[in-house]
Amino acid sequence: MAIKGRRDDDNNNDMEAPLLASDSFVVDLRPTYSNTTSQVALVGAEVCPIESLDYELVENDLFKQDWRSRSRARIFQYVVLKWAFCFLIGVLAGGTGFLTNLAIENVAGAKFVVTSNMMLAKRYELAFAVFAASNFVLTMFAAGITVFFAPEAAGSGIPEVKAYLNGVDAPGIFSLRTLVVKVIGTIAAVSSSLHIGKAGPLVHTGACIASILGQGGSRRHRLTCKWFRYFKNDRDRRDLVTCGAGAGIAAAFRAPVGGVLFALEAVSSWWRISLLWRAFFTTAVVAVVLRALIDVCKSGKCGLFGKGGLIMFDVTSENTAYHFGDLPPVIILGVIGGILGSLYNFLLDKALRLYTRINEKGKVYKLLLAATLSICTSCCIFCLPWLATCKPCPADAAEACPSIGRSGNFKKYQCLPGHYNDLASLFFNTNDDTIRNLYSAGTDDVFQPSSIITFFIASYFLGILSYGIAAPSGLFVPVILTGATYGRLIGMLMGSYSNLDHGLFAVLGSASLLGGSMRITVSVCIMLLELTDNLLLLPLVMLVLLISKTVADVFTENVYDLLVKLKGFPYLETHAEPYMRQLTVADVVTGPLQVFYGVEKVGNIVHVLRTTGHNGFPVVDEPPFSDSSVLYGLILRAHLIVLLKKKEFVHSRTLSGFDTSKQFCADDFGKRGSMGNNESIEDLKLSEEEMEMYVDLHPFTNTSPYTVVETMSLAKALILFREVGLRHLLVIPKSTSRAPVVGILTRHDFMPEHILGLHPFLSKKRWQRLRLGNFDFTKSTLSRTNTLSSILPRDLNLVASGYILSGLERTQRTFLFKGRSSIFFLIASLCRNIWNTPLKNEK
Amino acid sequence: MAIKGRRDDDNNNDMEAPLLASDSFVVDLRPTYSNTTSQVALVGAEVCPIESLDYELVENDLFKQDWRSRSRARIFQYVVLKWAFCFLIGVLAGGTGFLTNLAIENVAGAKFVVTSNMMLAKRYELAFAVFAASNFVLTMFAAGITVFFAPEAAGSGIPEVKAYLNGVDAPGIFSLRTLVVKVIGTIAAVSSSLHIGKAGPLVHTGACIASILGQGGSRRHRLTCKWFRYFKNDRDRRDLVTCGAGAGIAAAFRAPVGGVLFALEAVSSWWRISLLWRAFFTTAVVAVVLRALIDVCKSGKCGLFGKGGLIMFDVTSENTAYHFGDLPPVIILGVIGGILGSLYNFLLDKALRLYTRINEKGKVYKLLLAATLSICTSCCIFCLPWLATCKPCPADAAEACPSIGRSGNFKKYQCLPGHYNDLASLFFNTNDDTIRNLYSAGTDDVFQPSSIITFFIASYFLGILSYGIAAPSGLFVPVILTGATYGRLIGMLMGSYSNLDHGLFAVLGSASLLGGSMRITVSVCIMLLELTDNLLLLPLVMLVLLISKTVADVFTENVYDLLVKLKGFPYLETHAEPYMRQLTVADVVTGPLQVFYGVEKVGNIVHVLRTTGHNGFPVVDEPPFSDSSVLYGLILRAHLIVLLKKKEFVHSRTLSGFDTSKQFCADDFGKRGSMGNNESIEDLKLSEEEMEMYVDLHPFTNTSPYTVVETMSLAKALILFREVGLRHLLVIPKSTSRAPVVGILTRHDFMPEHILGLHPFLSKKRWQRLRLGNFDFTKSTLSRTNTLSSILPRDLNLVASGYILSGLERTQRTFLFKGRSSIFFLIASLCRNIWNTPLKNEK
Repeated sequence: MAIKGRRDDDNNNDMEAPLLASDSFVVDLRPTYSNTTSQVALVGAEVCPIESLDYELVENDLFKQDWRSRSRARIFQYVVLKWAFCFLIGVLAGGTGFLTNLAIENVAGAKFVVTSNMMLAKRYELAFAVFAASNFVLTMFAAGITVFFAPEAAGSGIPEVKAYLNGVDAPGIFSLRTLVVKVIGTIAAVSSSLHIGKAGPLVHTGACIASILGQGGSRRHRLTCKWFRYFKNDRDRRDLVTCGAGAGIAAAFRAPVGGVLFALEAVSSWWRISLLWRAFFTTAVVAVVLRALIDVCKSGKCGLFGKGGLIMFDVTSENTAYHFGDLPPVIILGVIGGILGSLYNFLLDKALRLYTRINEKGKVYKLLLAATLSICTSCCIFCLPWLATCKPCPADAAEACPSIGRSGNFKKYQCLPGHYNDLASLFFNTNDDTIRNLYSAGTDDVFQPSSIITFFIASYFLGILSYGIAAPSGLFVPVILTGATYGRLIGMLMGSYSNLDHGLFAVLGSASLLGGSMRITVSVCIMLLELTDNLLLLPLVMLVLLISKTVADVFTENVYDLLVKLKGFPYLETHAEPYMRQLTVADVVTGPLQVFYGVEKVGNIVHVLRTTGHNGFPVVDEPPFSDSSVLYGLILRAHLIVLLKKKEFVHSRTLSGFDTSKQFCADDFGKRGSMGNNESIEDLKLSEEEMEMYVDLHPFTNTSPYTVVETMSLAKALILFREVGLRHLLVIPKSTSRAPVVGILTRHDFMPEHILGLHPFLSKKRWQRLRLGNFDFTKSTLSRTNTLSSILPRDLNLVASGYILSGLERTQRTFLFKGRSSIFFLIASLCRNIWNTPLKNEK
Repeated sequence: MAIKGRRDDDNNNDMEAPLLASDSFVVDLRPTYSNTTSQVALVGAEVCPIESLDYELVENDLFKQDWRSRSRARIFQYVVLKWAFCFLIGVLAGGTGFLTNLAIENVAGAKFVVTSNMMLAKRYELAFAVFAASNFVLTMFAAGITVFFAPEAAGSGIPEVKAYLNGVDAPGIFSLRTLVVKVIGTIAAVSSSLHIGKAGPLVHTGACIASILGQGGSRRHRLTCKWFRYFKNDRDRRDLVTCGAGAGIAAAFRAPVGGVLFALEAVSSWWRISLLWRAFFTTAVVAVVLRALIDVCKSGKCGLFGKGGLIMFDVTSENTAYHFGDLPPVIILGVIGGILGSLYNFLLDKALRLYTRINEKGKVYKLLLAATLSICTSCCIFCLPWLATCKPCPADAAEACPSIGRSGNFKKYQCLPGHYNDLASLFFNTNDDTIRNLYSAGTDDVFQPSSIITFFIASYFLGILSYGIAAPSGLFVPVILTGATYGRLIGMLMGSYSNLDHGLFAVLGSASLLGGSMRITVSVCIMLLELTDNLLLLPLVMLVLLISKTVADVFTENVYDLLVKLKGFPYLETHAEPYMRQLTVADVVTGPLQVFYGVEKVGNIVHVLRTTGHNGFPVVDEPPFSDSSVLYGLILRAHLIVLLKKKEFVHSRTLSGFDTSKQFCADDFGKRGSMGNNESIEDLKLSEEEMEMYVDLHPFTNTSPYTVVETMSLAKALILFREVGLRHLLVIPKSTSRAPVVGILTRHDFMPEHILGLHPFLSKKRWQRLRLGNFDFTKSTLSRTNTLSSILPRDLNLVASGYILSGLERTQRTFLFKGRSSIFFLIASLCRNIWNTPLKNEK
């Protein structure tokens, strides 16, 4: 069945050549082109193969029987288990969040107490040595366990969770090993005074707990519970992981509603109202668990666990009335937040590209990088406070001044008695305590502008540099901290012009940098309200977020999208690129297409499974099984392997006729867990004789796969693919006289790299009315586009695409413009010219 | 082209009979069955025809040309306009909300001031007469303008907005006339002391403003702006209407984030992250506008507009700490809220069925009903306070006691000087002031239990009885009020057991009834927080909502779903009923199917358009236009009418060959506005000669409609239909040798009434493995199911279906059970036996 290669030119007629001949099973569609998009991605700190998740309802005979014979007990089990799992996720995520906080507060607290005591005794060198050494040991411990046991646990994990909820599965991201390393690594890394947070890791932890529960425990570690192994499909697991992610944020900030909204706004790709309700239940459980555990701690049994743990700030000053005169500084804050936020994303991207290049050289390099950062951070934290001049303690200070010990606004540091070092109060504290200090009301005179500036600069760059190390690390807290610093600075600069408290300015500053960097709005708004317990702030926070997000959108993407792209996940956007409207699905289908017959030879199946990496195969019925060539359905690789293992073969090409429900139960075909847990074709042992036999695929074939006609535009097919959550989409011919299926679309076929790679001469298409010059669309230009894309926001990516299509690289800049306004484009080109230093392409 | 009727029996072979013969155009598929679901619905207080909205991307030649030739200016205009419209919606919704409040406070305030003065002068009869008369006049004015000018403005409007956002369009719901009547009617109705709220009407108002802006003004009233008429498709309008609905809630409760979440949780059916961001912007504008307008009012220019207007309660008591001991009363509140809430829904349903029967008798009956209710309400409000014993004023009262005038906790009423009537403080106030009184902290001793009980009973039943009158009326405020009452009652009963303030109990009571009746959780949570400005309440509010929703879900549906069903809107659920998995799409397709050829005779088109109500027609190409019979695409009725009006006909059956882009522009085919605004076939005048000519449909046909194969299960097709937001879904045959299209699915084909009507003998299907007895599935049983459904929650509806299918009406109750647990079912059957008085089926 060798097939005429379908050409990509304009002549529609040779598309109608018969596609299926007889007796073979490989339909070679387009031998010169195949999908070249990457099938691997950077997961944590390691490159891994990735797969798609499948949310389609597989409707085969077995499923129907299974569904009909479903007993009351199983349905009852399903409903009860789903709610029970949400409850368990809440309890475990809340508990883990609390334990993480408790451990961090105690480890870091003990470190600060010991060091402070040495400082008090004026043994500064020894203090530095102890401080740096303990930081170094903690960092290396965190990096070590990450590098050697679970590289997937590095980083915040939010990009991985986001990709998973978009339908991209990577092995190990939700394994028990990852979970353990993530929790312990987070405790060690955050305690080591690195400029990183714990919110991101807690999101990953929550998602991990949810996924492990959903698959009924860890099979690798033999910790499974049969009763729990109920959710054998990706749809149910997606729901649980979404709840887990929400629970993570709820546990990190004690913000239950903020957690739900964060999961909705920043992490998930599909959302239903019932899921909102379920996530809300989960985070409510988290809130209750946290409150109960904190109540336990109030009796003083938790060591150094203080008020700063589980950030719950307090800016309930009396003076929360604001007037129109307060708007200008707020607007300025928004603008600054937008600019600094997008710059943050840009620099983070650069730093991560550099780090990836270092990290991929080997484990030793990863550890060296972590060690370097730990030493630099320790030096910064210990040495910078010496720059600040000591301030005399205020006479009416509410707390002890100078405070001796771990917490408090007034660190004595090297100062004389009765004086305090305001810079040390910022540096020489856990991040949570520092945020608390910055947010405190009525502390307008506590900090000096020079200290705030020093801390701002250090915080901004340490945050960018610390994220990429091979240890669990979050972005939220550094961003909040940096934002709070310049917020206070603006407050100081306003002086008597504004009546607002500087603590309030700090909150608004945090909001502005969160809006500028992460571009999440509603959830940040609620989270900050839940953190600060000050509802009258709401309109100001909203305003700041609106401005900073708008400003930042001009320059760069949001930080999570940027990380997802940088890691190479094939993330499916909701929004179709404009050139997708110009292409039909037939234009991007790549070959060779593997087709099976309804009754197929075992040897052929094994050969195809071994030689291709495809996960779905169209099944075609030919006479005598049907009166003409008919698309019977789609069969999945996983199901084929199960089928081959059972060895229910027949000797000739006939329908098997046996009752499938006796040989198989639906559980055999259920998805076990995350990728890598399932059976592989390599384990299969078949004799020569068995290879010559036939197997009846009909009962196991999904008889109603979603199909699109080959002339549908890619943009429209994307809507179907994305909204319904597909893994495979079959392309059927327009004419009924041809073969019943002409191709199969997967996630990778919608990736811009693939499409632009297939159609470098888009400009020559007959339907392209645009008068474009001849233009050599080389690979170098494409990589240039990618570089450009990485620093431009979504709207400008569209511009960039049009701009490349226009083929007039530097002269005609505004062609095919589809962005917010032309001023955006001018700014962007300017930025490109200023920022865009040549970058070698990393792998 | 008379076609063999496709039978519904098991023999698959006669499905393969050729479906398309020659020379005619009507394919008569299944003459005995056609879709019998209602094409009309109760919109406001009037039965109207309804249509579906279409969110599909129509990809025809003209669209492609239009898209490619889209100028920069137009794209710029699109982006700017969409944001500008959000801004305008925010400003207008905020302004309207404020004006509504201002007017209500002044009208109702003046009424209470006059009456109170007469009471002070002991002229009680005159006071009653003035009070009742002014209420009567206001009610009759509201009902009158609603009945005579815009029946669509009756009720809250949330069901209509919800149905619109699900894809159901009804004429007039978003017209300028409706908007004006809604605003004025709300002011009059709420001022008339009826037990109704303004939140629902404000949601409708916001949506109305958004829709009118989106379609560029009102064409009927010639108030259009050409520059504004940009959004010619349902997708953009859906976004704007969603933002408008959110703005409405934001304006009603001054709760911007609550508004966004309400739109997301309770109203919209499709949601994207970008929409979240847009809605958030809109409600932020509302918040700013409201704040600015209230600031203006602070100088006292707004007459009687007081603190109670735009509810912003104040329960910031010092004593917000709570302990585990406080949980039992909170749990009890949740349970009571769930039971009372579901009973509320049940009784409301019964009341509305009765009212509908009265209202459909004519305009006079509608007015009589409104008059009766007004008089009854006036009597209640005026007479019940006499039952209460006067209480001496507390010595340390913060405000004047007894208060003379409109507001205040201490109404003197008929009491002696130095005493107050606590029941009058509740009854003889605007609803907003009463809520404020109930929510106030530190007023534990102000109210007597007997007064609270009296008020609770009156409020509960007045709320149920007042909603259905033919005037704008909301449900939110009565529910909040009733909930607050029994919340306080529980607080009183707890006595010294609980330390919580009674005002706090009132807030929790409101939450519990909102959760029990409306089943919205996250948004209520945020809304109550924004209303009360007390964040420490959050865990308690979450707990109460969780319990009350869970309890209420056992008994009835949520009130909006109930109203949507009662009004007869064909609302598409996300969730497929279980029998939909047992049916294929071919099982529900009804005939006759109208098919057009690629080049069709004008007379045929006109005939089909005049004789059928279909809105989409498959276009089939036959030789010589293609090499076999091929499905070319789908053409819409609206596009055909535009095409016929242009009269670009040809004399023979050939391709027209003219350049469509010269004769037509995409604007000709843009959707003008809501239903009823578009052209009708009746206006078309064609000569005999023209009727004999041909028209080339190819350039106007959507060449890539979504299709499903006839063997796909209905449940799976529903996922596609619902997620992508379709109006028409083409069904193609499994075998390629047959006609290219076998049917067309619309929203109505997914309605349970239709499916169960087509397949009364589901139990006899060969694939039904369940051993079911022979059972005469008569219409009466079906109507019994409907009655049953109306009082059971979703999960129990599934039970009910299975239960009916089982055919063993009263004996085998738990068959095919698919609910939360069997205890639910027992409760439900109990309720059914207690509650289910025979009800005649209303039309």
